[in-house]
Amino acid sequence: MSLPRVSVVGATGLVGRKILEKLEQRRFPVSELHLFASERSAGATVEVFGDPVRVEKLTREAFLANTDIALASAGKDVSTLLREWARGSGAVVVDNSSAFRMDPEVPLVVPEINPDDAFRHSGYIANPNCSTIQLVIVLKPILDRFGLRRVVVSTYQSVSGAGQKGIDELSTQAIALFNQAKIESKVFPRQIAFNSIPQIGKFSDYGYTEEELKVTHETRKILGVPTLGVSCTAVRVPTFACHSESVTIETESTPTVDELREALAGFPGLRVMDDTADGIYPVPLDGVEEDDVLVGRIRRDISGGDNAFNLWIVADNILKGAALNAVQIAELLHAGRPGR
Amino acid sequence: MSLPRVSVVGATGLVGRKILEKLEQRRFPVSELHLFASERSAGATVEVFGDPVRVEKLTREAFLANTDIALASAGKDVSTLLREWARGSGAVVVDNSSAFRMDPEVPLVVPEINPDDAFRHSGYIANPNCSTIQLVIVLKPILDRFGLRRVVVSTYQSVSGAGQKGIDELSTQAIALFNQAKIESKVFPRQIAFNSIPQIGKFSDYGYTEEELKVTHETRKILGVPTLGVSCTAVRVPTFACHSESVTIETESTPTVDELREALAGFPGLRVMDDTADGIYPVPLDGVEEDDVLVGRIRRDISGGDNAFNLWIVADNILKGAALNAVQIAELLHAGRPGR
Repeated sequence: MSLPRVSVVGATGLVGRKILEKLEQRRFPVSELHLFASERSAGATVEVFGDPVRVEKLTREAFLANTDIALASAGKDVSTLLREWARGSGAVVVDNSSAFRMDPEVPLVVPEINPDDAFRHSGYIANPNCSTIQLVIVLKPILDRFGLRRVVVSTYQSVSGAGQKGIDELSTQAIALFNQAKIESKVFPRQIAFNSIPQIGKFSDYGYTEEELKVTHETRKILGVPTLGVSCTAVRVPTFACHSESVTIETESTPTVDELREALAGFPGLRVMDDTADGIYPVPLDGVEEDDVLVGRIRRDISGGDNAFNLWIVADNILKGAALNAVQIAELLHAGRPGR
Repeated sequence: MSLPRVSVVGATGLVGRKILEKLEQRRFPVSELHLFASERSAGATVEVFGDPVRVEKLTREAFLANTDIALASAGKDVSTLLREWARGSGAVVVDNSSAFRMDPEVPLVVPEINPDDAFRHSGYIANPNCSTIQLVIVLKPILDRFGLRRVVVSTYQSVSGAGQKGIDELSTQAIALFNQAKIESKVFPRQIAFNSIPQIGKFSDYGYTEEELKVTHETRKILGVPTLGVSCTAVRVPTFACHSESVTIETESTPTVDELREALAGFPGLRVMDDTADGIYPVPLDGVEEDDVLVGRIRRDISGGDNAFNLWIVADNILKGAALNAVQIAELLHAGRPGR
């Protein structure tokens, strides 16, 4: 492939800006770079690769005339447009929104896990949910080596999952509290400062929220195990960056804890931080701006027999959970299918 | 029983002060009230029942000369002394420390669950761990009606669990961050402001922390099911008040979700807040200063077959998790064994 023309759609958002950073940091080869955003942000200038780049208003004509690979994080309505525009055009959209992730025609890709799926696209590839990505990166080596029966997840998700407005709401509320000023909640359903909210997204089927069902369905799709038992309780906590997950798994075979740790340690994109004798385990602040998913507190689940284990997973939800994974998919597309 | 002489040991601490508030609020009948604290706090004056009461230095003589019922929250070393002093003296100590909770001779009591155990004391009764109390209050009606096989808990614990110094550390760190000043961590092993720490207490057996094993062992003891499968991941989050718990259970029989909800709704000390259609579920801020344990997000665990369920539990860890439960035990002792 010659150097691709790359478009970033939603370039001024939290994830869009991180996509630009990652493209630059990873020296993604670009012949032309176009930044698109909503009419409101069009005309702004963003510095990329050391040069100022003007943000353009997203139109079908401007998009298709300038795009081989698009990286998008602009919400579901834009996703619908981009998918229609890209189909049959030669352009490929890597989209961070949840709009089409569970569409059987749409690949849902974590490059360390199911890279081949990226090449089965019809112009549109979905980037998975942030909580899902950091989970499946840990589950994949376990599934491959020991088999998996069941996964139960409780999340501790940062406000950055709701974008810049989520970050602003937590800091505004915290400052207001210390100044005994009035608290307003606009982004989250309850006060998030010094609180924990067991609701992310709307409530949906079976008493689960949309976020929780994303973890269930997307995990099954990415791992290619449609019947895997996966449940999630998704909780927003007052942290700015990184999501954490307390995870209980049941494996098919019965590894030792050391065998489990060893399987995890060898997997790309995953770093084991697990030495409780030295107080080593990951916390959200360890994960900030880190590309790797961090895992620790690996131990047998003393409630559940010899094939149940507990783990604690931390990752930067804006990086591996969003921008980095999208850029890695673009890298795959540019490199081409291995062995061809 | 005539009106008891009550001593509060550790009267100036966070839990001690709440014990005094609860004695007053619940009009606990007291003939004399003595407040004890360490030498450092002795001589201070605390207002109780509208009158100033002088805090005395804790000595064996002063304690035994003035105590029918003692409510203590003063750490393990003091617990050892109090237990020795009280044995055979006629005084009964209700102690919030973890020193002797798992001693087979020591009753570990949640009045709604195992009130009879309170009368099997040898002068010393243990008040359970805060995370345990709010859990067992929910498990008990489920155990009685549907049986229980397994319990997996992930906690979201506030800094008040570490006492006033925990509260101070979170607020100091948060203010320092907003002022771009240096952060110091003295009480918690890592920065707690805008972070989550999967370590409460020291690391102990099987890769679990002391706090996590307390939940396992104390739950079994209070419920009277020594083989119950219970595991916990205990996580400190940057909230000031109330602990939350994401809990997965497996029952023996197969209730419907409505039957489960109904069993919970009828149990004393427990309030069901579970109407996701109206956005109703408990958050830590709902639990502050509330006597009840709050439970919501009651649903079938879609990973685990027909007898697995998920729940979300919130309680004020300083009240039902500590001071209130201790005062309720004292009320039991004063009322005497029912039916005798």
